[in-house]
Amino acid sequence: MSELDSKVLKGDIRAIARMITLIENNDSVAIDAMKNIHKKSGKAHVIGITGVMGSGKSSLIFELAYQYRKRGKKVGIIAVDPTSPFSGGAILGDRVRMMELATDDNVFIRSMGTQGMLGGLASSVFDVVEIFDASGMDIILIETVGVGQAEVDIVKIADTTIVVLVPGLGDSIQTIKAGLMEIADIFVVNKSDKSGVEQVVVEIESMLEISSKSDRKIPIILTSTNKNQGILELLNEIENHRIYLKKGKKLEEKRKKRYETELTEIIRKRLMSLIFDESKFKDKVDRLIDQISKKELDPYSAADEILGKILK
Amino acid sequence: MSELDSKVLKGDIRAIARMITLIENNDSVAIDAMKNIHKKSGKAHVIGITGVMGSGKSSLIFELAYQYRKRGKKVGIIAVDPTSPFSGGAILGDRVRMMELATDDNVFIRSMGTQGMLGGLASSVFDVVEIFDASGMDIILIETVGVGQAEVDIVKIADTTIVVLVPGLGDSIQTIKAGLMEIADIFVVNKSDKSGVEQVVVEIESMLEISSKSDRKIPIILTSTNKNQGILELLNEIENHRIYLKKGKKLEEKRKKRYETELTEIIRKRLMSLIFDESKFKDKVDRLIDQISKKELDPYSAADEILGKILK
Repeated sequence: MSELDSKVLKGDIRAIARMITLIENNDSVAIDAMKNIHKKSGKAHVIGITGVMGSGKSSLIFELAYQYRKRGKKVGIIAVDPTSPFSGGAILGDRVRMMELATDDNVFIRSMGTQGMLGGLASSVFDVVEIFDASGMDIILIETVGVGQAEVDIVKIADTTIVVLVPGLGDSIQTIKAGLMEIADIFVVNKSDKSGVEQVVVEIESMLEISSKSDRKIPIILTSTNKNQGILELLNEIENHRIYLKKGKKLEEKRKKRYETELTEIIRKRLMSLIFDESKFKDKVDRLIDQISKKELDPYSAADEILGKILK
Repeated sequence: MSELDSKVLKGDIRAIARMITLIENNDSVAIDAMKNIHKKSGKAHVIGITGVMGSGKSSLIFELAYQYRKRGKKVGIIAVDPTSPFSGGAILGDRVRMMELATDDNVFIRSMGTQGMLGGLASSVFDVVEIFDASGMDIILIETVGVGQAEVDIVKIADTTIVVLVPGLGDSIQTIKAGLMEIADIFVVNKSDKSGVEQVVVEIESMLEISSKSDRKIPIILTSTNKNQGILELLNEIENHRIYLKKGKKLEEKRKKRYETELTEIIRKRLMSLIFDESKFKDKVDRLIDQISKKELDPYSAADEILGKILK
């Protein structure tokens, strides 16, 4: 075991930060350290929180983190959302409690980019989850935004996925239709002090009736972070879902799915960087694209040529 | 040349439909036919139209197609939107003209899925564009929905990308902020007979002022498909953009980017299907994932093992 991973496993905050930076840069020492870290991970409960911009996800995560800290849990927060306060956006409502959380050694916050402009989760999110987990964090909260690939991918990492909606956003329900519907383990209607809450709830319920295939009733929780309402109920439903997963083989299956996605991601990344980044292929690829542009060659034959060079 | 591609190149509608189905299924005869088709493609102008649900993209595409037909152009429509009327959704406003278009032999409509639940454009969209193009279509209209990867990917295929907004959708501008802003060659504010148009225009303008790096002023066109307003202006701006691209090397560069993305996609798909679909690797992969789950192995070492088996 290297010094780096042994420090990470002891929960050393600086080592965790350094480890994450190294793994994001594909550092070989870090990749080696991940082998030990992987073996020590698997205990944390990973909670994904997604929803449209302006739905108050960050405030909700803050309240959840605050409650978990009160219960003595160590908390990791991963913000895959450039507009999140956790990523350096505007500060949240209650500055005193926010500062309390920010200076708490048992809360670790990491902001990460998405892959490409609006693309899926960066593959290193998988690593960060394992690093947080192995370092002794009990709860890992992941924030993603929008209705893109990142939100769908969150299901592949999170044990529990929370979809946050708010009243009054014109296309909130259309958003659900587009795919968020199927990924929610828990629905939250946030800003429930605003008008239009009932309509959102009715719409979710009627859609759940149509599409639900699960043996489990998906709860809809009304929250208001302004009025501090519904947070304990949400906490309770997260715990219920955790217990539900532990029964039978559901958690095991979820985790298997996560590792499969992670493995796919690592392989994809390595192969693509082999072909498109390494200089010995890059020139070749550029030449082929040039030929394709000039109609001297078609993309399928070009792919054959490249694959012929790298495959056994 | 096979019978299939020679028929496609003659514009035979049945052959085109068959060719697309074959290529979607990775048929080797179709892949072979693509070699000829690629060489004959490159003349069509590819127009991508994206925007949130309910923004009236389909009606707009219908109006554009109608106008192009009046000018004697052959038109292909690709709907990468499950809710589009072109994909079998609700029929558009003017039934008589819709029927006219639907029975016109010089209009070919194809609906396609996205990759994964909300993922990027299916790689076969590239092929369909080339098939349409080589078969003699002058204009290819691609419809995508939402703010996911598919909308960003459209830029990699389309010569001209149109982003459609509407007044009154709460988060329309936030949507732009999230990434659509950078991809628009032309903005359309549709349903311009509704109130709130001015606000949308002002917001687009102020954001264009901040982010615009281009030498070209990005036009904002107000349209109303109900009142049949703005369509000719939009047509005119599409033509202006086409001329702009033809000046210098802009079109050439755009197309090069398209081929690069297509090549990447083909390679990615082949490698992933080699590893995760072919039985000789699939069992191995399943065993490795099992070991990862049991913490006997970490994902990076598993990736090494798989890559060691396939790479030279």
